Amino acid sequence: MKSVKGFQFSGIHSGIKKENKDLALIYAPDGASFASVTTTNKFAAPGVHYTRAITKNETLLKAILVNSGNANALTGERGTQDILTLLRTLGEHINVKPTQGLALSTGIIGKFLPVGIMQEAMLKLTQSLTDNPESFATAIMTTDLVPKIVYHQWESEGETFSILGIAKGSGMIQPNMATMFSFILTDATIDSSTLRQMIPDIADKSFNAISVDGDASTNDSFLLLASNKKAQITAKNLADFQTELTNVAIQLAQKIVRDGEGATKFVEVRILCAKTVSEARKMFQAIATSPLVKTAWFGQNPNFGRILCTIGKLDTSLDPEIVDLQLGPHYVVKQGAAVDTPKSLLDTYMQQPDLCITVTLHQGDACFTGWTTDLSYDYVKINAEYN
Amino acid sequence: MKSVKGFQFSGIHSGIKKENKDLALIYAPDGASFASVTTTNKFAAPGVHYTRAITKNETLLKAILVNSGNANALTGERGTQDILTLLRTLGEHINVKPTQGLALSTGIIGKFLPVGIMQEAMLKLTQSLTDNPESFATAIMTTDLVPKIVYHQWESEGETFSILGIAKGSGMIQPNMATMFSFILTDATIDSSTLRQMIPDIADKSFNAISVDGDASTNDSFLLLASNKKAQITAKNLADFQTELTNVAIQLAQKIVRDGEGATKFVEVRILCAKTVSEARKMFQAIATSPLVKTAWFGQNPNFGRILCTIGKLDTSLDPEIVDLQLGPHYVVKQGAAVDTPKSLLDTYMQQPDLCITVTLHQGDACFTGWTTDLSYDYVKINAEYN
Repeated sequence: MKSVKGFQFSGIHSGIKKENKDLALIYAPDGASFASVTTTNKFAAPGVHYTRAITKNETLLKAILVNSGNANALTGERGTQDILTLLRTLGEHINVKPTQGLALSTGIIGKFLPVGIMQEAMLKLTQSLTDNPESFATAIMTTDLVPKIVYHQWESEGETFSILGIAKGSGMIQPNMATMFSFILTDATIDSSTLRQMIPDIADKSFNAISVDGDASTNDSFLLLASNKKAQITAKNLADFQTELTNVAIQLAQKIVRDGEGATKFVEVRILCAKTVSEARKMFQAIATSPLVKTAWFGQNPNFGRILCTIGKLDTSLDPEIVDLQLGPHYVVKQGAAVDTPKSLLDTYMQQPDLCITVTLHQGDACFTGWTTDLSYDYVKINAEYN
Repeated sequence: MKSVKGFQFSGIHSGIKKENKDLALIYAPDGASFASVTTTNKFAAPGVHYTRAITKNETLLKAILVNSGNANALTGERGTQDILTLLRTLGEHINVKPTQGLALSTGIIGKFLPVGIMQEAMLKLTQSLTDNPESFATAIMTTDLVPKIVYHQWESEGETFSILGIAKGSGMIQPNMATMFSFILTDATIDSSTLRQMIPDIADKSFNAISVDGDASTNDSFLLLASNKKAQITAKNLADFQTELTNVAIQLAQKIVRDGEGATKFVEVRILCAKTVSEARKMFQAIATSPLVKTAWFGQNPNFGRILCTIGKLDTSLDPEIVDLQLGPHYVVKQGAAVDTPKSLLDTYMQQPDLCITVTLHQGDACFTGWTTDLSYDYVKINAEYN
């Protein structure tokens, strides 16, 4: 059972979507320490602004209400009022004040929440709370094909800690924006201020290292919660604890990429020997968002010129005459010139579902590894029809 | 007849491609004044480096040899030697020294030119020269569906001048990179130095204001040539002359967008009342390269939230609370909040082949207008299969 002491979950169909679950709740009856990272998008939704305010002013969180099917974005002051209304109604059923709760939304942008429907569903939602996170993970999905759960147990200093990760997201996935919903819950004892010191680095190595289509949503949020039910994390095991959390975050991030809209390939892109991490990250981002590169991957086409072409357009310190490029183990460019690798070898390599592209810049010792997908007919279909 | 005094054209099949014309020539027997803008891509092909060197050192150009089917990019020193070999062979058939000629290439990246085949075709190529630019315009095509020619006559100071524009390009189209091949030829008398003062502004208002897929090629070049066969352009009509050239360039640029790979929509994007032109251009670029926005257009889907979402991710001075957004004549967002425009009106509007998106920022008096396309199944198909 993937449970974490101190947290309960539920997920139901309320009627925001025509069918499928669309309303979800995480409840920590005794409260949890917490930290958050939210989207950098300027059109951040009211739910994101509310999360930022609560993170700024509070150190204890009891509830996270999440709906799918409607992003409550571009909804102005009414969007904020709707959040308060929903949290007040939630407080009529479980012991949560509006300042102890969050209300996150994902789905179509520019429509008001059907607040009445959601209020009516609140009784059923709270009555359905259990230790099992699966309904929650399903109810937060939009175009996701599968729920995304990572469960990990970690033993340290004679105690067994649980770490549970739950995420949603498969489009609008872009680095540097904490890009989707992601919740990581643990039963360890650790205060909000320490969690808040950790969270940016965890996000950078996981959710900020993936890209499906280059767009960052108005609603993306990453929440880290600790129920303080198990032993205290100490100076002795703090670094290890952060590594464990980071590994769970990376696994969740990779699950999001693998479920990328229409994805038929999972591609690891390694930028090696760059001058700075920031330049390496920029190059990853250019490769991971180039429609020309991504459609070639979909076509299982070793058209490697497009990869260098797309990083060549950037304003970086790249020296085109010393770059190497590998498709998997095969060198295709050495010192900026094409290498005569047999096309049959490359064709065979490109047929694998998991690809690895390595760009070696020979300019320094910075590197960046990120994960992305191809661009398929189904990506177009999913997004042409999404309403 | 779309001819310009002082220029001859030809285009033939040499064998670089399996079928279709692939080798083309512009010949100015008495030489032409000229100016050039070339790609900013760091992996600029040898032909681009050669164009830059000739533009730097020479003021008279006699020949432009162009091949399609092979970009002669990522080909290192051998790529440069191949250009010299080809221009020397050309000089055995017409009166051109290597320093009076250019050799431009477009097509697949990372393969050496089949120089022998091209040398053998040079006799036929030079023997086929005529006043008619159509074979030339066809032979420079890659994934283009149609040749792109704009012909314009301009009367000024009692003289009739001809301006002929020829372009190729339908993918790898991105602003700020002079992004395709484009040749504008005139019979006016004007020196190279004046042409070189004009060319950046002409490119900015035309080829740098279009985007198909966000990638800039390693080979893109815009050449402006004057055969000096008609009257001298004077201080009196210089500004008008530049406007005429700019209009031809805009028409060519729009033809490239309309022939964008797999395009089913032609979309004008207007960014109004921005703080700076540079911010407005950045927003155009974000909209024009967002797969989420472009697939929604393909689906004739008024999912306008995506448009604001994609400019919201940028680091600009945008104030989300005062932005207006229009789909054609219909307001969908006013002061940052969604407006209740009947969906049936928007659905009907989105069915038109030509769309206009207007973002009004209310922050200043800068504006930028650009042109782009949707992202369709056929874009994916064309680029998945391109070899």
